[in-house]
Amino acid sequence: MTKDTVLHRVEIIMGSQSDWPTMEKTAVELEKLEIPYKALVVSAHRTPHRLYKYASKAADRGIQIIIAGAGGAAHLPGMTAALTHLPVIAVPVKSSTLSGVDSLFSICQMPGGVPVATMSIGDAGARNAGLYAARILALMDPALEERLMKYITDQADSVPLTP
Amino acid sequence: MTKDTVLHRVEIIMGSQSDWPTMEKTAVELEKLEIPYKALVVSAHRTPHRLYKYASKAADRGIQIIIAGAGGAAHLPGMTAALTHLPVIAVPVKSSTLSGVDSLFSICQMPGGVPVATMSIGDAGARNAGLYAARILALMDPALEERLMKYITDQADSVPLTP
Amino acid sequence: MTKDTVLHRVEIIMGSQSDWPTMEKTAVELEKLEIPYKALVVSAHRTPHRLYKYASKAADRGIQIIIAGAGGAAHLPGMTAALTHLPVIAVPVKSSTLSGVDSLFSICQMPGGVPVATMSIGDAGARNAGLYAARILALMDPALEERLMKYITDQADSVPLTP
Amino acid sequence: MTKDTVLHRVEIIMGSQSDWPTMEKTAVELEKLEIPYKALVVSAHRTPHRLYKYASKAADRGIQIIIAGAGGAAHLPGMTAALTHLPVIAVPVKSSTLSGVDSLFSICQMPGGVPVATMSIGDAGARNAGLYAARILALMDPALEERLMKYITDQADSVPLTP
Amino acid sequence: MTKDTVLHRVEIIMGSQSDWPTMEKTAVELEKLEIPYKALVVSAHRTPHRLYKYASKAADRGIQIIIAGAGGAAHLPGMTAALTHLPVIAVPVKSSTLSGVDSLFSICQMPGGVPVATMSIGDAGARNAGLYAARILALMDPALEERLMKYITDQADSVPLTP
Amino acid sequence: MTKDTVLHRVEIIMGSQSDWPTMEKTAVELEKLEIPYKALVVSAHRTPHRLYKYASKAADRGIQIIIAGAGGAAHLPGMTAALTHLPVIAVPVKSSTLSGVDSLFSICQMPGGVPVATMSIGDAGARNAGLYAARILALMDPALEERLMKYITDQADSVPLTP
Amino acid sequence: MTKDTVLHRVEIIMGSQSDWPTMEKTAVELEKLEIPYKALVVSAHRTPHRLYKYASKAADRGIQIIIAGAGGAAHLPGMTAALTHLPVIAVPVKSSTLSGVDSLFSICQMPGGVPVATMSIGDAGARNAGLYAARILALMDPALEERLMKYITDQADSVPLTP
Amino acid sequence: MTKDTVLHRVEIIMGSQSDWPTMEKTAVELEKLEIPYKALVVSAHRTPHRLYKYASKAADRGIQIIIAGAGGAAHLPGMTAALTHLPVIAVPVKSSTLSGVDSLFSICQMPGGVPVATMSIGDAGARNAGLYAARILALMDPALEERLMKYITDQADSVPLTP
Repeated sequence: MTKDTVLHRVEIIMGSQSDWPTMEKTAVELEKLEIPYKALVVSAHRTPHRLYKYASKAADRGIQIIIAGAGGAAHLPGMTAALTHLPVIAVPVKSSTLSGVDSLFSICQMPGGVPVATMSIGDAGARNAGLYAARILALMDPALEERLMKYITDQADSVPLTP
Repeated sequence: MTKDTVLHRVEIIMGSQSDWPTMEKTAVELEKLEIPYKALVVSAHRTPHRLYKYASKAADRGIQIIIAGAGGAAHLPGMTAALTHLPVIAVPVKSSTLSGVDSLFSICQMPGGVPVATMSIGDAGARNAGLYAARILALMDPALEERLMKYITDQADSVPLTP
Repeated sequence: MTKDTVLHRVEIIMGSQSDWPTMEKTAVELEKLEIPYKALVVSAHRTPHRLYKYASKAADRGIQIIIAGAGGAAHLPGMTAALTHLPVIAVPVKSSTLSGVDSLFSICQMPGGVPVATMSIGDAGARNAGLYAARILALMDPALEERLMKYITDQADSVPLTP
Repeated sequence: MTKDTVLHRVEIIMGSQSDWPTMEKTAVELEKLEIPYKALVVSAHRTPHRLYKYASKAADRGIQIIIAGAGGAAHLPGMTAALTHLPVIAVPVKSSTLSGVDSLFSICQMPGGVPVATMSIGDAGARNAGLYAARILALMDPALEERLMKYITDQADSVPLTP
Repeated sequence: MTKDTVLHRVEIIMGSQSDWPTMEKTAVELEKLEIPYKALVVSAHRTPHRLYKYASKAADRGIQIIIAGAGGAAHLPGMTAALTHLPVIAVPVKSSTLSGVDSLFSICQMPGGVPVATMSIGDAGARNAGLYAARILALMDPALEERLMKYITDQADSVPLTP
Repeated sequence: MTKDTVLHRVEIIMGSQSDWPTMEKTAVELEKLEIPYKALVVSAHRTPHRLYKYASKAADRGIQIIIAGAGGAAHLPGMTAALTHLPVIAVPVKSSTLSGVDSLFSICQMPGGVPVATMSIGDAGARNAGLYAARILALMDPALEERLMKYITDQADSVPLTP
Repeated sequence: MTKDTVLHRVEIIMGSQSDWPTMEKTAVELEKLEIPYKALVVSAHRTPHRLYKYASKAADRGIQIIIAGAGGAAHLPGMTAALTHLPVIAVPVKSSTLSGVDSLFSICQMPGGVPVATMSIGDAGARNAGLYAARILALMDPALEERLMKYITDQADSVPLTP
Repeated sequence: MTKDTVLHRVEIIMGSQSDWPTMEKTAVELEKLEIPYKALVVSAHRTPHRLYKYASKAADRGIQIIIAGAGGAAHLPGMTAALTHLPVIAVPVKSSTLSGVDSLFSICQMPGGVPVATMSIGDAGARNAGLYAARILALMDPALEERLMKYITDQADSVPLTP
């Protein structure tokens, strides 16, 4: 089986177990759209060797998209993007002291040459990370594209006319 | 020819001609990686109907990725993402009064349900938008994947050892 | 009946049902001043087609003022202003991660050419949106002008002399 | 001649002569739309009595809309709104030390009860102040409404298709 | 009795009754130092005429120092300083949406020509307003100077050596 | 001659010679109002012992008011206030990296117990520091009070009616 | 016994007893690594003389590292660094009004010439202060270096693979 | 020769050659204090493998202190600290879009467990990085301690008494 024909491969990584309540929202969206995924804890700061091994090998293992959530001086998404050529989607987790503006700047302000796709801070961003992965994968998967378009239509239909 | 077999299709849109000096950096990266693209001016605020038509039809026209640059109350990327199911990559253009922090918040803080991939503010972000498009397209195009990996290796090699 | 002679027509729109606890304060002020209104949910991001239809037709339906509340990457007021020539009054709803400073910048930092009247963040702004609508309508309605002037006088009288 | 039948009356006030290069952009837009106006210097801090007299009497003099520009601890718009029941449109002028974020907060964060319509910081906001006045006055003046709609159409037409 | 020989006269004004829990801390410090004071509600926005009358006459009534607390677009201290030549001490009250940074900028960023003495945000600032009034009055009152110096010494002595 | 009968004594201190172009504006205002002063360089960080000696002895030397200008982690005003019971007026000097918001927070956010009177950032604040000193001294000096009132009247008269 | 041969000497100082719940995290880390320490309250603002004496004599008493925690206009670390040539490690304590961004700017933005090693805001920073002291001391103490390396390894091992 | 007896070993690393004009200020201070150093370019994002090798081996090569300068989403200092147990001193380089506040947050807001010693933004911070290294090394080197104490005394003496 060549890399091109494997199942979609999305992995959710996060800097700490405490990021899971946020990143779980990513998982929920992926499940709604029937996209298989795996969730892992990879700390850029506490387990840098795990990160290096993880990110350097991700493409070879057939992973297609990495979703990385982290807070504070959030180096996980940017370092992952530096170590792979796969698209990285990042979720700035809300931090306890600066409300996530530190996470946002740390993740988003990447130098030219190493792109990271930053979502909004916190739960909304975690949801959107799953949906953005779906938008990418739908380019290669007409059935997923159908499910995604239906998701968007259903979402519009679920908005009530009056508050 | 079905949509799945067309050439890569990337379009760069921007809210104003004055955003071109920034968004041109996106074009340069796409050219380096031999990714065809088209650049258009679509103002969310001054030409909302052009935006509506543009974004609603983009998928049908076989476009795969939309890169949107805008500054200030930058609504272009988010509205485009609301009107298509394609992946949208956004560049917060540096604004004259608040240095682009307004652009960043306006683009990045999307509600759950409608994802936008935010790059860094200004030129670095514009470069990265092109490179992020390449990372996505490389999932479907082994030759581009080769060029992208070479780009990353060359970039590493070009960093001098001493200042 | 021509458009000029219809009853005042104010509509309150908001990006999500969850904005109603804030936007209800607008409704309360309009009711105090006997200004008829309707409240609707129109999400720029989840229901962009509803927004386009809504805003493009508002003037033709005889609406005079649109009050729009939204939070985060709040595109509703600006896009409404882009699609109509009616005055739009905007309320930046307090967001869960950045306290509404993202809403404020997204709404307020409009480019030259498309004006939005931004009120303060949250409940105070919602109240003021109703009162600003009243100030506009009072230009055309001497009876409302009387009620508004009385409202202001009563408000002054209700401020106690000592804490 | 009753107040209701006078010509449109818009006045532009500013806290200092140094605000004129910004507020001149308001004047330009009013002129394009053939809206008569007068421009005055009224400093909340240096000439509080002039402000008091000015704002208290504005409605009696038949003024319909006051556009106020100020920077830093910008009290002019809010105090004007406190002293009149007319609609006040405010322009936060870019300040030399904090880029206008101080002006924006000082103007925009009004307490419930006294509304001010805040435009964007600096030149764009000054332009929009004129256009917002036009949107209000167009509710009462079909000919102006025509000019305003044409302005908006022309503005859309002037946006080029490519950068 | 000439103005120069009257009792110390300090007045605490605040924009709203809801500022009293903060401004009460000013009162407590004044009482500790045996400085007579009066506390009044004067809203710049809701009772601008009360403010004009209050501030314009304060010096004539023999008041020596005005302490003004306000939050949000806090215009009370600056307008008071514009209407009197007495020293005004200001307390930025913590606001519900922007944590008082709006209050701080609105109060502190006064233009050249009209000084306001800004204290820290919230309770600490309220306490300090009372103590700053004491420092000013102590210049004219050796007995108060004694009490103030003892207060400072006692404060130092009350700091424990270990946590 | 007792301390109470000496001439007004105002001293301007600053953390570095490079603060003089800002603090010179304080001197200009003091001169206009005929208030004698002395200007000194006292660096909290580079000359802490000079500061200690300076501030501890200021009251004994008959100084009445200390005006302190500093930028960045601006500790000079707060430490001076900790070492004397005299009123300290502070000017946050505009910093090269954060536009003076660091200076403002470092100076203004004093803990309860040690008050500092913060002026606006930069030149306007420096001017106001001189004028605030005048407001304090005028409480003890009817002739200065006359000059100050004339200064305020002249300032109002110098504001032109039109831009 | 010469100064060079004494036991490691680390002291934790803090501006107020209320900083202990934060600074206790420093103590916990030092204890884990078996580094002796003492904790003291030294307020820059309330006990400036204690600070001067404390910091000026620290090196002579054989202290090697001073860890200083403070919040708001946090002058303790910078003034300590000004009064000693020992390395000072600083913890910006989270403040009640500005979430510690004031503490961070006050501590971090030191002028050239007087270095302070700033940690992150709040509890994480307090933990890191202890660990940074260990990194410094390990340069001189191979046994501590062993414990520190084991600490880092154990920390990596304790990160679970899945959330 | 064992690691403990080698010469002081300080290395300055930076994310890009463009950081050298800032980091050169570190070198100047080290030279003044006769501390040998080497300067290298190590980009966390463009050369992550160089960083990995560099930081993992630094201690074994006998390096004692690493000074790391980086701007924007500045991951270099934190990743270096994650890969070594040596003390890391960090300089947030001023960025072109957000004045270095992004660099500061990315560097400073490290999670508990991996400490980084953050200096001030830009040139002042670069100078201080050199001086902080000196303070650490002086703990082990009485001759350097002498030079450092003289440096501090000379610095104090060079501050003029008047501006």
